[in-house]
Amino acid sequence: MIVRDRPSAFRLFFITRGSIVPRIAPQILLAAILGGVVTFLHERAPEQFPVLTVVPFTLIGLAFAIFLGFRNNAAYDRYWEGRKLWGQLLIDTRSLARQCTMLIGPRMADGQPGEAAEAREVSGRMVYTAIGYAHALRHHLRGTKPDDDLAGYLPQGDMAAALARSNVPDGVLALLGRDLRLCLQRGWISDQLALAIDERLTSMAAVLAGCERIRNTPLPFAYTLLLHRTAYLYCFLLPFGLVDTIGAMTPLVVAIISYTFFGLDALGDEIEEPFGDLPNDLPLSAMSRTIEINLRQALGEKDVPPPLQPVDYCLM
Amino acid sequence: MIVRDRPSAFRLFFITRGSIVPRIAPQILLAAILGGVVTFLHERAPEQFPVLTVVPFTLIGLAFAIFLGFRNNAAYDRYWEGRKLWGQLLIDTRSLARQCTMLIGPRMADGQPGEAAEAREVSGRMVYTAIGYAHALRHHLRGTKPDDDLAGYLPQGDMAAALARSNVPDGVLALLGRDLRLCLQRGWISDQLALAIDERLTSMAAVLAGCERIRNTPLPFAYTLLLHRTAYLYCFLLPFGLVDTIGAMTPLVVAIISYTFFGLDALGDEIEEPFGDLPNDLPLSAMSRTIEINLRQALGEKDVPPPLQPVDYCLM
Amino acid sequence: MIVRDRPSAFRLFFITRGSIVPRIAPQILLAAILGGVVTFLHERAPEQFPVLTVVPFTLIGLAFAIFLGFRNNAAYDRYWEGRKLWGQLLIDTRSLARQCTMLIGPRMADGQPGEAAEAREVSGRMVYTAIGYAHALRHHLRGTKPDDDLAGYLPQGDMAAALARSNVPDGVLALLGRDLRLCLQRGWISDQLALAIDERLTSMAAVLAGCERIRNTPLPFAYTLLLHRTAYLYCFLLPFGLVDTIGAMTPLVVAIISYTFFGLDALGDEIEEPFGDLPNDLPLSAMSRTIEINLRQALGEKDVPPPLQPVDYCLM
Amino acid sequence: MIVRDRPSAFRLFFITRGSIVPRIAPQILLAAILGGVVTFLHERAPEQFPVLTVVPFTLIGLAFAIFLGFRNNAAYDRYWEGRKLWGQLLIDTRSLARQCTMLIGPRMADGQPGEAAEAREVSGRMVYTAIGYAHALRHHLRGTKPDDDLAGYLPQGDMAAALARSNVPDGVLALLGRDLRLCLQRGWISDQLALAIDERLTSMAAVLAGCERIRNTPLPFAYTLLLHRTAYLYCFLLPFGLVDTIGAMTPLVVAIISYTFFGLDALGDEIEEPFGDLPNDLPLSAMSRTIEINLRQALGEKDVPPPLQPVDYCLM
Amino acid sequence: MIVRDRPSAFRLFFITRGSIVPRIAPQILLAAILGGVVTFLHERAPEQFPVLTVVPFTLIGLAFAIFLGFRNNAAYDRYWEGRKLWGQLLIDTRSLARQCTMLIGPRMADGQPGEAAEAREVSGRMVYTAIGYAHALRHHLRGTKPDDDLAGYLPQGDMAAALARSNVPDGVLALLGRDLRLCLQRGWISDQLALAIDERLTSMAAVLAGCERIRNTPLPFAYTLLLHRTAYLYCFLLPFGLVDTIGAMTPLVVAIISYTFFGLDALGDEIEEPFGDLPNDLPLSAMSRTIEINLRQALGEKDVPPPLQPVDYCLM
Repeated sequence: MIVRDRPSAFRLFFITRGSIVPRIAPQILLAAILGGVVTFLHERAPEQFPVLTVVPFTLIGLAFAIFLGFRNNAAYDRYWEGRKLWGQLLIDTRSLARQCTMLIGPRMADGQPGEAAEAREVSGRMVYTAIGYAHALRHHLRGTKPDDDLAGYLPQGDMAAALARSNVPDGVLALLGRDLRLCLQRGWISDQLALAIDERLTSMAAVLAGCERIRNTPLPFAYTLLLHRTAYLYCFLLPFGLVDTIGAMTPLVVAIISYTFFGLDALGDEIEEPFGDLPNDLPLSAMSRTIEINLRQALGEKDVPPPLQPVDYCLM
Repeated sequence: MIVRDRPSAFRLFFITRGSIVPRIAPQILLAAILGGVVTFLHERAPEQFPVLTVVPFTLIGLAFAIFLGFRNNAAYDRYWEGRKLWGQLLIDTRSLARQCTMLIGPRMADGQPGEAAEAREVSGRMVYTAIGYAHALRHHLRGTKPDDDLAGYLPQGDMAAALARSNVPDGVLALLGRDLRLCLQRGWISDQLALAIDERLTSMAAVLAGCERIRNTPLPFAYTLLLHRTAYLYCFLLPFGLVDTIGAMTPLVVAIISYTFFGLDALGDEIEEPFGDLPNDLPLSAMSRTIEINLRQALGEKDVPPPLQPVDYCLM
Repeated sequence: MIVRDRPSAFRLFFITRGSIVPRIAPQILLAAILGGVVTFLHERAPEQFPVLTVVPFTLIGLAFAIFLGFRNNAAYDRYWEGRKLWGQLLIDTRSLARQCTMLIGPRMADGQPGEAAEAREVSGRMVYTAIGYAHALRHHLRGTKPDDDLAGYLPQGDMAAALARSNVPDGVLALLGRDLRLCLQRGWISDQLALAIDERLTSMAAVLAGCERIRNTPLPFAYTLLLHRTAYLYCFLLPFGLVDTIGAMTPLVVAIISYTFFGLDALGDEIEEPFGDLPNDLPLSAMSRTIEINLRQALGEKDVPPPLQPVDYCLM
Repeated sequence: MIVRDRPSAFRLFFITRGSIVPRIAPQILLAAILGGVVTFLHERAPEQFPVLTVVPFTLIGLAFAIFLGFRNNAAYDRYWEGRKLWGQLLIDTRSLARQCTMLIGPRMADGQPGEAAEAREVSGRMVYTAIGYAHALRHHLRGTKPDDDLAGYLPQGDMAAALARSNVPDGVLALLGRDLRLCLQRGWISDQLALAIDERLTSMAAVLAGCERIRNTPLPFAYTLLLHRTAYLYCFLLPFGLVDTIGAMTPLVVAIISYTFFGLDALGDEIEEPFGDLPNDLPLSAMSRTIEINLRQALGEKDVPPPLQPVDYCLM
Repeated sequence: MIVRDRPSAFRLFFITRGSIVPRIAPQILLAAILGGVVTFLHERAPEQFPVLTVVPFTLIGLAFAIFLGFRNNAAYDRYWEGRKLWGQLLIDTRSLARQCTMLIGPRMADGQPGEAAEAREVSGRMVYTAIGYAHALRHHLRGTKPDDDLAGYLPQGDMAAALARSNVPDGVLALLGRDLRLCLQRGWISDQLALAIDERLTSMAAVLAGCERIRNTPLPFAYTLLLHRTAYLYCFLLPFGLVDTIGAMTPLVVAIISYTFFGLDALGDEIEEPFGDLPNDLPLSAMSRTIEINLRQALGEKDVPPPLQPVDYCLM
C-alpha cells in the first residue's frame, strides 16, 4: 500500500512510485506512435484515407464505459472486501485474546494447586496460536513458506501438524479447536463460554474462506477478455477517428485518452487480487505485525516488536 | 472457470477458449453483412436511400446503456453470490468438522467402555455426511445423478433415505440432524454445544436455498426480452445510421459495435446462472473436491485425493 | 414468473406472453402517430414549423437516464429482495421442521408412557402450522382468502384464532409460539434448544414484515410522477426534435425510442411490487407448494402433492 | 406517504398533491422568464450577443449527472433504510410480544398462588411499554411531545421517569430492561430465555440509533452546496447556450429541463430526511398504529383501534 | 459537520463556511487565467493556433465521469460507514449500560451484606469505562491525547494500564473484560448473561477495527493519482478545445467546469477520511458527548453536561 500525502499539482506529474504509468507505458507509446503515423499518412493523401469520424467512438464509448465502470467497481469491491476480512481477523484475534485471558481458568472452588498456572499456560498458548494463524494466512495468500514466522509462536509438534495439512491456516485453526476441547475437558471453561470462543474460531475460518474466494476466483475470464479487446480496438483505431478533425494534435490526444483507458484497465488488474506484493496491494505484513503487537500486549508483554514502517512510501 | 494469466496484447485476439465470440459470431456476421449490403445500396442510389443519421442511436444508446449496465451488474451479482454461497459452504463444513471432532464425546466421568469409540464413529460419520452434502448440492444444481459420489461417503441405508426425497441435499441434511439428535440423546454433547452444530446445519440449509434461488429465479423475462430486442434493433439498424458519414467503413464499425453489445449481452446470459458447466461457470467440482480434502484431513486421514486441475485452462 | 429458454433471434420479435409490449402499445402508437402528423406538417410548411433540434433531448436525456436507471435498480432490488425473503422462508421452515423433529421429545429418563407419542404429535402439528404459515403469507400478500389452504394444515380452533387477527400470518405465528411454550412447560425441550426454535419464529416474523414493507411502501410517489411526466414530455416532443434531420423516418424512430423508454418505465411498475399475479411477478404459489412438499417429506410422508408446473410458460 | 394508483396519462399532468412542482415553481418560472429575456435580446442584436453554444452544457452535464445520480441514490437509500428500521421495529415488537406472553411465567412446580397472574401482569405491561416505545420513537423523530400517546400505555411513574431522560425512547427502553430484571429476579424466566428478550431490546436500541443517525447526519453540506450551485448555474446559463439553435422555443425547453433538474434536486431534499411530515415522508403514524393493533391483538384484546386511513391520498 | 438549513438561492452563492471553494480557488483561478491567455493568443493568430475541438473532451469525459462517480461513491461510503460505526458504538454503549445495571448483582439468596453495593459499584465502573472508551476512540482516531477525557471516567491505575498499550481503546476494552471476569468469579452474573455483555465488547472491538480500517487504508494511491492527473489535464487543456467555438466566453466556462470537476475531486479527498476535524468531517466530539449524557442518565445521574452546540454552523 502506498502511504503518502497528496502531492502538489506540480509534483503530481513526476511521481512513478505507485503509479500505473510504468506498466502501461508500452501501450500508450504504441498508440501515440500509431497516431503519428496515421497523421503523417493522412497529411500526404487525405482523399484516399479511410476516415472513421468520431461517431463510432462515442457509440462504442457507451459500452466501454459500462465495462470499465463495472470492472472498476468489482475490482475495488474485492480490494475493500479483502481489507474488511483482515479487519475482521483483527477483531477476532483481539476478542479471542480478551476471551481466552478472561474466561479460561479453573473454577475457584475445585481448583487444584498449580491448575491455575496450567490453565494460564494453555490460554497463553491459544493467543500465540492466534498470532501464528495471522502469519499462516498471510503466507497462504502470498504463496510463501510460513515456517519462520510460525516457529516463534507454535510449539514444534503443533507446527509440524499444521504444516502437514494442505491448507496450513486451517491446520492452525484445528490446534485452537484442540486447545479449546482441552479446556472443556479439564472444566476450565463452561459450555456456554466455550461457545463464545468457538464463534471466534468459526469467524476466523470465515476470514480464511473469504480470502481464498477472492484469491482463487477472478472476474470471469470472458469479461476481462472482452474488456481488453475493446480497449485495444478503441485506442488503436482512435487515430483514424480523430485525424480528420484535429490533425497534428492526434498523437497527443491519443496518448492522453490511452493513458486514462489503459490506466483504468491496468489498475483493475492490479487491485482485483489484493493479496500480492505489488505497491497498491494490501499491507498484509504490516497488518499481521499489528495483530502480533496487540495480542502480545494483551498477554501483558512489554517487549513487543515495533510496527512496520513504509519503505519508499510503500507499506508491505 | 477459465484459469489463465493475462495474455499479451497480440495473443489476446486469438484466444477462443472462454471467449464469448464463438457464441455471438452469427449475429456479428449478420450485422456486418447487412452493413455491407446497406453500403452497396447507398453507393448506388444515395438520394432515395432512407438515412437515419446517428442521432437516434445516441438517444437509444442511453436507454440501452442503462439496460446493459443493469443486466451486467445483476448477472455478476448472481455469479458472485453463487461463489459466496459455496464459500459459505466451505466455512460451514470445515467448522462442522472442527466442532464434531472437538465437541462430541462422552463426558469423562460417566463414559462406559467403548463409548468413546462409538462417539468417534458417529462424529466421523457426520463429517463424511457433510462431504456427501457438498456432492449432493453440486449434483442437485447441475441436474446430474449424485449416486456415485454419495456412495463413498454415506452408508447404504442413509443414501437410500436421502435419494428418496425430492430434494436430495435436504435429505442429506436430515441425516446430520438425526445424528446430532443421537448425540444429544446419548449425552455425548450438551444442549448448548449442540446448538452450535445446529447453527451450522441451518447455515448449510441457507446455502442450499440460496443456490436454488439463483438457479430457479432468472431475471424477469420481460427484461431479457426488452434487452434482446433493443440489441437486435440497434445493431441491425445501425448501418442506416452510419453509412452516410463513414461510407465504406460501415461494415467494419458495425461488426465492432455489434461485438461489444452482443458480447456484453451474451456474457450476461452465461454467468447469470453460474452453476452450469459452461467455461465461465463456477468450478463446483473443484470446490467440492476441496471440501473433500479439507474434511478428510480434519479427520486425520493422510490418503486424500489430489485437488482438481484445470483442463485446457478450464476448471470444472 | 415466465419460465422459458432464450428464444431464437427471429422468434424473439413475436413473443407477447410476458412481454411488456401489450401494456404500452397505446402510448407507442400515440407517439408514432404524433410523429407522422409532425412529419406531414413539417413537409408542408417547413419554414413556419417550430423546430427543437435534438439538442434538448440529449440534455434531458441525462436526467432521464439517471431516473430510469435509478428506478430500474430500485424496482429490481425490491423484486429480488422479495425473492430473498421467500428463500429465507424456505430456509426457516425447513430448519424448523428439522429442529422440531430432532429436538422435541421427552427426556429419556422421566418419560411417561405415551408421552413420546404426544410430543411427536405436537412437533408434527408445528410443522403443519409452518406449512399453513407459508400459505397464509401468500394470501396475505395477494389479498386473497386463506381459508381453503389453511383448513388442511391447521386444526379448526387454531384456524379460527388465526383468522380473527387483523394480520393472519402473525396469528399463525402465535400458534407456533403457543406450541413451543407447551413443549417448554412439559419439559420436552430445554430452554437452550427452545431458543433455537424461537429464533426461527423471529426470522419468520422478519420475512412477514419484510414482505409487508415491499408491498405497502412503494417508491415515493413524487418520483414516479416526475418520471412518468418526463417520459411523456420526452417521447411526445421528440418528433419536433427529429423531423428536421431524419424526415420521413421520424415515426419509426419515435416508435422505437418510445418502446425502450416506456418499456423500461412500465417494467419498473410491474416488478416494483412483485407479489401480485402479473406474469413477471414471483411464483408464490409454486414456492409455497415447494415448502409443502419439503416439510411433509421431512415428516416422513410419502404421499405429497406434485410441484406446480408453468401454464403457458407462466409459473404462478 | 402518497397512496394512489398510477393515474392515466392525461390526468398525470394535473396532479399537484405529492408532486414536487409547487416547491420548485419559482425557480422554473425564473429560468423560463430569463429564457424569454435572452431570446428577446438575441433577436434584436444577434451579433453582439454572447453565445455559449450547447457544448459547455454537455461537458458540465456529465459532472452534474454524476452528482444528481449520487445524491438521488443516497437520499433514497436513507429513505429506504428509514423504512427498514421501522420494519425492524415491527418485527422486534411483534416478537417481543410473542416472547413475553410465551416465555414469562412462574415455573410450574414452585409457583405460589397468584404468582401466575402477577407474572401475566408484568408481561402485559412489557407489551404495553413496547407500544409506548413506538410512539415515543415517532415523537422523538418528529420533534413533537409524546405525552398523550404514552399516557395510554405507561403507568404514571414510568412515564415520568422516561420523560425525564433527554432521550425519551431510550428511557422507555430502560423500563423494559427493569421489568426483564424483575422477571429474572422473581425466577419467572431463565437466564437463557431472558437473553432472547434482551436481544430484542438491543435490536430496538439499534432501531433508535439508526433513525437518529439518518435524522441527525445529513449528506455532507459541501455536497448539497456544490449540487445546488451547479443546478442554478446550469439552468440560468442554459438560455445562452440554446438561443442560437432553437430560437423562440428557448423558454419552453429551459422550463422543461429546469423542471427535471430542479425536480430531482428538490426530491432529494424531501426524502433525504424521511421522518418529517411532508407528503412524501414515511407514514410513521400509520406504522405506530399498526404496531398498536398487532400488539394488543397479541395480548388477546378484541377492541383495538382501526388502522389509519390516507387523507387526500396522503398517509401520515 | 456543517449544520444549517438550505439557504435561499441568492445567499447560496455567498456561503464559504463548509464550502469546498476556498480549497480549490487556486486551481480554478489558474485554469481561468490560462483560458484568458489562450483566448488572447487565439484572437491574434487563429490560423497557427493548435485547436483541439471539443471532441477529445467528450471522449475523455466518459472515463473521467466513471472515475469521479466511482471515487465519489467510495468516499461517501467510507464517510457513511464511519457514521454507522459510531452509531453502532452508541447502540453498544447504551445496551451495555442497560445490561450492566440490569444483569449484574448478587443472586438474592446467597448475597452477603454489602455485596449488592459492591456489585453496583463494579457495574457503575463498567458504564464509566464505556464512556471512557468512546473518548479514547475519538482521540485515537484524531491523533490527540486522551488523558484529560479519560481522567474523569477511569480510576488512576486503570488509566495508566490503558495508556501503556500502543492501542489505547483496546486497552480500555481490556478493562471492561477484566471487570466482567470479576463479576463472573464473584458469581454476580451467570455464564449465559455474561455472554450477552461479552458480545457487546466484541461489537465495540469491531467498531474500533472498522474505524481503524477507514482511517488507515485510503483508496489505492494509484487511483487518486490517475484521477488527479486526469482532472488537471482535462481542465488545463480545455481552453484549447473551447476557444474555437465560444471565443471570449472561454475563461468563464473553463472556470465553471473546473469548479465542478475540481470541486467533486476535492470533496472526495475531504470526506474519504471522515474522522479529522475539517468542517465536513463527522462530529466525533458531539457524538461522544451524547454517549456521555445517555450513559450517565442511565446510571440515574441528573447532573449531566449539555449537548455540544455547533459553532459558526460547524459541529465538531
